[in-house]
Amino acid sequence: MSSPEIPFVKGHGTENDFVLVADPDAALDLGPDEVAAICDRRAGIGGDGLIRAVRATAVADAPAGAEWFMDYRNSDGSIAEMCGNGVRVFAEFLLVEGHLPAEAGDGRWIGIGTRAGVKRLRREDDGRWTADMGSWSVVGGEDALGRGADAIVEVPGLDVPRPGLSLDLGNPHTVVALASAEELDRAELHRAPSVDPVPPNGTNVELVVPLDAVDLDGDATPDIGEIRMRVHERGSGETRSCGTGACAAALATRAWAGEGAPDVWRVEVPGGDLVVTVGQGSSATAGSVYLTGPAVLVARGVLGGL
Amino acid sequence: MSSPEIPFVKGHGTENDFVLVADPDAALDLGPDEVAAICDRRAGIGGDGLIRAVRATAVADAPAGAEWFMDYRNSDGSIAEMCGNGVRVFAEFLLVEGHLPAEAGDGRWIGIGTRAGVKRLRREDDGRWTADMGSWSVVGGEDALGRGADAIVEVPGLDVPRPGLSLDLGNPHTVVALASAEELDRAELHRAPSVDPVPPNGTNVELVVPLDAVDLDGDATPDIGEIRMRVHERGSGETRSCGTGACAAALATRAWAGEGAPDVWRVEVPGGDLVVTVGQGSSATAGSVYLTGPAVLVARGVLGGL
Repeated sequence: MSSPEIPFVKGHGTENDFVLVADPDAALDLGPDEVAAICDRRAGIGGDGLIRAVRATAVADAPAGAEWFMDYRNSDGSIAEMCGNGVRVFAEFLLVEGHLPAEAGDGRWIGIGTRAGVKRLRREDDGRWTADMGSWSVVGGEDALGRGADAIVEVPGLDVPRPGLSLDLGNPHTVVALASAEELDRAELHRAPSVDPVPPNGTNVELVVPLDAVDLDGDATPDIGEIRMRVHERGSGETRSCGTGACAAALATRAWAGEGAPDVWRVEVPGGDLVVTVGQGSSATAGSVYLTGPAVLVARGVLGGL
Repeated sequence: MSSPEIPFVKGHGTENDFVLVADPDAALDLGPDEVAAICDRRAGIGGDGLIRAVRATAVADAPAGAEWFMDYRNSDGSIAEMCGNGVRVFAEFLLVEGHLPAEAGDGRWIGIGTRAGVKRLRREDDGRWTADMGSWSVVGGEDALGRGADAIVEVPGLDVPRPGLSLDLGNPHTVVALASAEELDRAELHRAPSVDPVPPNGTNVELVVPLDAVDLDGDATPDIGEIRMRVHERGSGETRSCGTGACAAALATRAWAGEGAPDVWRVEVPGGDLVVTVGQGSSATAGSVYLTGPAVLVARGVLGGL
């Protein structure tokens, strides 16, 4: 690289991976070409995105109420508003690299500025982070079976079209329940499922199968729901994980389960485990949702200058 | 990672990329699982392989005659004998990291120990490296058109089966000439071409189209041949580059061109440009071949301990 030396950290959350760069005073000039070169998995460091940490005071349009702004770029250099897995890794990066006071890791809520507003995060005792993913709503209605459904989804590799439920988590999702883990394995997600009616801005599609529910307190009512999920992301194809997709999958399954369904869901994605918690006091079809998951920093280094 | 901190360099040669680790005294215990974790593109650093630099005196079966041994591991943790792009990046790594005297970069031949014996390399004035790839031979015979061919190759995406020529460069190759760049683009190399007769140990398949030959000295005879190539590697699928494959593609095209064909060939691969030079005094169908190409070090860092 002919560019100046740039210190970086590589990290991932459920195998959604990022190159993280501290640029407190917004001194770095990283255009789309530079970002794409850094995120190139063979000619660069490689990552699903590059996240630049800038002090909010150095960013013209940073939201008020957070010290640090997360400047998220996709691997092609384009700008993204938010990333549910990225914001956890970003918070861990700030903490480990000393850009936040050590107390910020003590389980209190901290604010992170993003293009989608200030997000609140909290570090759990086991090192995972929980992000308040904000409000959500079920868009879909009821199908003939009384299950929430508002779309028909054709999944490549599966013979029969399936009902799908649309949810809005700031971005659009369509969740499809499958009958078995075998069906989930059989789906060919290198091709996009077709959704009818076609959503105006496209949609992410989550395929889910229920696993055993867990009854922690022995009252025979499951306290934690468990699902396995695969996801096809708009514009990216199948990915190892999608934070808002895990929330959508848990919320749809919870809506289908009806009265008495758990508020806490473990979501197995190809890249690891996430936990989705539906906020207390929320209604069954709208409210606030929390996403808990790992934030792993893998390596620290310097780009260029070799 | 729970393992100790490991300093590394990431580099690539025509986008064949590697994690390079100096371990002069063979003190690191990197089993297949550790190598696979480091080469994982999302949960690790990511690379087509990990190359460990060990002093030959610390390796029981290192070949005599070279100070450093290249311990090459594939991204799945398995062991490989040699890698034509990797050995250039390895030499650059040794030089830049100070494991070779600075004079080793002055265009003299140096020896690198590999599991396929000692390889000789030389750094060019422009920073590229040339590797003596050793002996080669044309396995194939003549087809009905008098062109060297000994196999019929069905390439997914192309309608008509094509004649292929088999070459041995320590590993097996089958080279297929296509009529146009459009055909080259149309080939679907995420699937393996089928080769008849089926080679006993499988084969790498190179698809080539000729570009304009270059006449440097104005005598109307081309001094440099030019081809474009795509490659399907045994066990790996389509890759951005293959060093021995570029040699095989140039040698086959040279054999087809017959009397007066150039000894120097520029080979365009998806990951960049390579130059293949057929050794002076060699016969038309066997001898020694040299591969020149870039060796780019992208970043230096420390794995783990975060």
